[in-house]
Amino acid sequence: MINFQTSPEQYKHWKLSIDGSVATLSMDVQEDQTLAEGYKLKLNSYDLGVDIELADAIQRIRFEHPEVRAVVVTSLKPRIFCAGANIYMLGTSSHAFKVNFCKFTNETRCAIEDDSRHSGRRYIAALNGTASGGGYELAIACDEIYLVDDGNSAVSLPEVPLLGVLPGTGGLTRLVDKRKVRRDRADVFSTLAEGLKGQRAKEWGLIDDTFPTSKFQEAISARVRAIAESDGNAAVGPGVKLSPLEELESTANGREYKYVRLKLNRERRYADLTVRGPQADLPTTPEGVHKLGDAYWPLQAYRELDDVLLHLRVNEPETGLVCLRTEGNINDVLAVDKTLAVNRDHWLMRETLLHMARVLRRLDLTSKSFFALIEPGSCFAGNLLELALSADRTYMLNNPDESIEIATSELNTGALPMSNGLTRLQSRFLAEPDKIDEVLAHGGSYDTEAAEEAGLITFAPDDLDWEDEIRLAIEERTSLSPDALTGMEASLRFAGPETMDTKIYGRLTAWQNWIFQRPNAVGPQGALTNYGKPTQAQFDYKRT
Amino acid sequence: MINFQTSPEQYKHWKLSIDGSVATLSMDVQEDQTLAEGYKLKLNSYDLGVDIELADAIQRIRFEHPEVRAVVVTSLKPRIFCAGANIYMLGTSSHAFKVNFCKFTNETRCAIEDDSRHSGRRYIAALNGTASGGGYELAIACDEIYLVDDGNSAVSLPEVPLLGVLPGTGGLTRLVDKRKVRRDRADVFSTLAEGLKGQRAKEWGLIDDTFPTSKFQEAISARVRAIAESDGNAAVGPGVKLSPLEELESTANGREYKYVRLKLNRERRYADLTVRGPQADLPTTPEGVHKLGDAYWPLQAYRELDDVLLHLRVNEPETGLVCLRTEGNINDVLAVDKTLAVNRDHWLMRETLLHMARVLRRLDLTSKSFFALIEPGSCFAGNLLELALSADRTYMLNNPDESIEIATSELNTGALPMSNGLTRLQSRFLAEPDKIDEVLAHGGSYDTEAAEEAGLITFAPDDLDWEDEIRLAIEERTSLSPDALTGMEASLRFAGPETMDTKIYGRLTAWQNWIFQRPNAVGPQGALTNYGKPTQAQFDYKRT
Repeated sequence: MINFQTSPEQYKHWKLSIDGSVATLSMDVQEDQTLAEGYKLKLNSYDLGVDIELADAIQRIRFEHPEVRAVVVTSLKPRIFCAGANIYMLGTSSHAFKVNFCKFTNETRCAIEDDSRHSGRRYIAALNGTASGGGYELAIACDEIYLVDDGNSAVSLPEVPLLGVLPGTGGLTRLVDKRKVRRDRADVFSTLAEGLKGQRAKEWGLIDDTFPTSKFQEAISARVRAIAESDGNAAVGPGVKLSPLEELESTANGREYKYVRLKLNRERRYADLTVRGPQADLPTTPEGVHKLGDAYWPLQAYRELDDVLLHLRVNEPETGLVCLRTEGNINDVLAVDKTLAVNRDHWLMRETLLHMARVLRRLDLTSKSFFALIEPGSCFAGNLLELALSADRTYMLNNPDESIEIATSELNTGALPMSNGLTRLQSRFLAEPDKIDEVLAHGGSYDTEAAEEAGLITFAPDDLDWEDEIRLAIEERTSLSPDALTGMEASLRFAGPETMDTKIYGRLTAWQNWIFQRPNAVGPQGALTNYGKPTQAQFDYKRT
Repeated sequence: MINFQTSPEQYKHWKLSIDGSVATLSMDVQEDQTLAEGYKLKLNSYDLGVDIELADAIQRIRFEHPEVRAVVVTSLKPRIFCAGANIYMLGTSSHAFKVNFCKFTNETRCAIEDDSRHSGRRYIAALNGTASGGGYELAIACDEIYLVDDGNSAVSLPEVPLLGVLPGTGGLTRLVDKRKVRRDRADVFSTLAEGLKGQRAKEWGLIDDTFPTSKFQEAISARVRAIAESDGNAAVGPGVKLSPLEELESTANGREYKYVRLKLNRERRYADLTVRGPQADLPTTPEGVHKLGDAYWPLQAYRELDDVLLHLRVNEPETGLVCLRTEGNINDVLAVDKTLAVNRDHWLMRETLLHMARVLRRLDLTSKSFFALIEPGSCFAGNLLELALSADRTYMLNNPDESIEIATSELNTGALPMSNGLTRLQSRFLAEPDKIDEVLAHGGSYDTEAAEEAGLITFAPDDLDWEDEIRLAIEERTSLSPDALTGMEASLRFAGPETMDTKIYGRLTAWQNWIFQRPNAVGPQGALTNYGKPTQAQFDYKRT
């Protein structure tokens, strides 16, 4: 069972140090501290365990150290920044694990860019040695890249020439779409096992600058100082400490957190996932919220939801369908949304909203089917309505004798965007954009018939049909090919515009997944299988 | 060997009839007239042979019948429009063939939309019976869809529930991106084997209207009449007859057409592909060009190039790299470009340009590496410069003693767009858009040093290094994993914006290719393998 929770005191591979407005994230991977057997993490190569720490560190900078303006990402190993994902780990992993590993590392890189874009922190990749494969991909997720010019250190993407796979963490897309490297140069670079050094790398736009060893630290320091001293709305601490999430109960068939409950129906391959709404009378000022800290409902509930989604992905692969429910009071959810919306310029509110948005995107990108079930006692309002809008389908009970309602809030208008940049309402009403304004202008909540009329739900069975219809829908869904569903959902969930993120998760990931099962990569004579062995890869050269 | 050339007299499965400004394309697939052994084309299901005829018919409408304003796509079989790609054909095909089959059928559907968008012809899918899978995908490539309401006929995408694969011809993307069907409804529809009929299909936006059997023909006729009578710049015929392409020589190691030469270097897995430029003194008026007909260089050369690209894809899978060369006089190419640009409002010039653009996009989408080699006697100018710009890399000989030049023309500014909507110059200079204007403003041609300075080529070896460098580059490229190269090129060639086309070829195709190798689809217990057999598919339910 892979555990996604950690904290700086527990880190094995990263050191996080804070000095005023500068954070330094130093990679110092411990070879033997691997997540699984059978490989050693040499040369700052990484496995999922290393990346879980990195993801945690970025999250903590945002919440615990809001005063940080610049984040230096570097290595404590001489002459090597990072050698990327460990090849032997990849070679011995199942296809599903490889795919989920890449998805998580992609989300971590996107979290860096999210921090940079929305919270204004500047990430500096200080490459004190070679950055190859995932090492260089980590660098291009940063805002600026500086490479030591020691006659030896290079940046490279050796996956295609050495391993017969693609750089798996957004590298090719960021090369041409973020750094806008000329496509013919990107082609040359991506097929050059040894990569490029110093001036050539700079000339081709692969790095921003290069400095001799003797001047490297000084140059980085100067750059960091310039950022720290530049104008910008630096948040004032103190931050909010993120405590370990407590599971109230964890059994073979589920998990119970404070606000999130997971119940696995293993024999039927689906899970019930319930999010409880907030208490009444939560603080409405940033000061009050700050005092509550990580116990504030939006922060805690979404941290729990994040943890359970990652758990489902990696530890529960046979669960193909998740039934989303909520429990609580709609007005209490709307009150929280109002507090967040009104105070969104306060750093803690902003970070909380950005975190909620990332968790919802994690859900959009999870390869499981999601059905939202709206029943009496639920509170699909505002931010929790996004759960229903992110679901592949929504069933809302139609029973005039009970109070069953959903509602929108200010947070449905743009604070929680999908990877494609649209709100979930925009994504839903691509054909009728006018409906979005109608829906938002609607005063008060929707009962089932109004929700159906407004196009906010898929089906509205009455109480006579409800149980049978839901049972049948679950049975049907879980009987279908899990692979076809993954491809179908990846296609239907992201209509409309594309962004670098959707390109990475859609186009690039799909190609990588394809290659990850090709005999030329993973067969007995494949390149990934034979890497580092005396035997050589032998390809079937047919082009597909 | 699969032959992509055909003509209406040779059609086995389609009837093309022209009545004034209305063309009717009627599908009447002959069960036994298959391209390969082992399956029967029941219920208007199709294989590549059927689609080659459809592609040819669309092309002929555009060139031979420019007066056509409306194209009715229908079936001659009672109660069935089209059952989609033949499942047994798919089940018995190699992975590479399935992938190439889907790519070609996608290009044919995109050609329908290209005709509609740029030449103003309106495509009417007259579904006189059920349209399932690829049958419905053919319908949604049309502008309008009408379904008979006979209590039985439906539209459906049964691939996910019945076959464990995706609709392979753009269906999911067009569902949510073109017809903008609400994503939850698209989810329901795509998992419903029997599909939806009449009013429900209309309400969900899957079709435009439905009519009872007794009124169906009348309704279609009325719609077609309205289109024919509507305003619009109908071209005036006569059209230009497309004669069969003559191969002057076709051997095991190559093909020689009038303007295109293919030489296969099988043992080294690469091909030399040379396009000869136009003659001097070609006509410069539409009337003169019309008189030349399909012998006019741009039309004939690009038809030959199209044929050879399709041949390479399907019949030469082991050829992984194509070295592109041109032979001729730059000024003659520029003269042709000028004629096309000046007269682009004339239907024949417009159709010729649109055809050239489609062939170049076919090249962009071909899963082979392309190197452009620019040597003395070459004519990479204007439209032929697009060949160099579409290549993954460009090598230009640097020898001051010889005349080696490239040049731009009006046609590099937008007449020949890529699938992502950009010109190849825009795609090349994403980082420095100002360079595009500089390049276009440059008077006259570029010698090697100027071309390198302008960023138009990748490498400029001198004559001492040229042979070795090219030989090494070829050897290196052809030694790499063909699958990794396919994924890499698909990622690097299409930076920048995305369109429905790039989503279909990138995202959707990549997912389908992935699923097409999954045991859940094609393993002994896979859904595709077991379709129509007494045995049932058995899935490994792990979600990936």
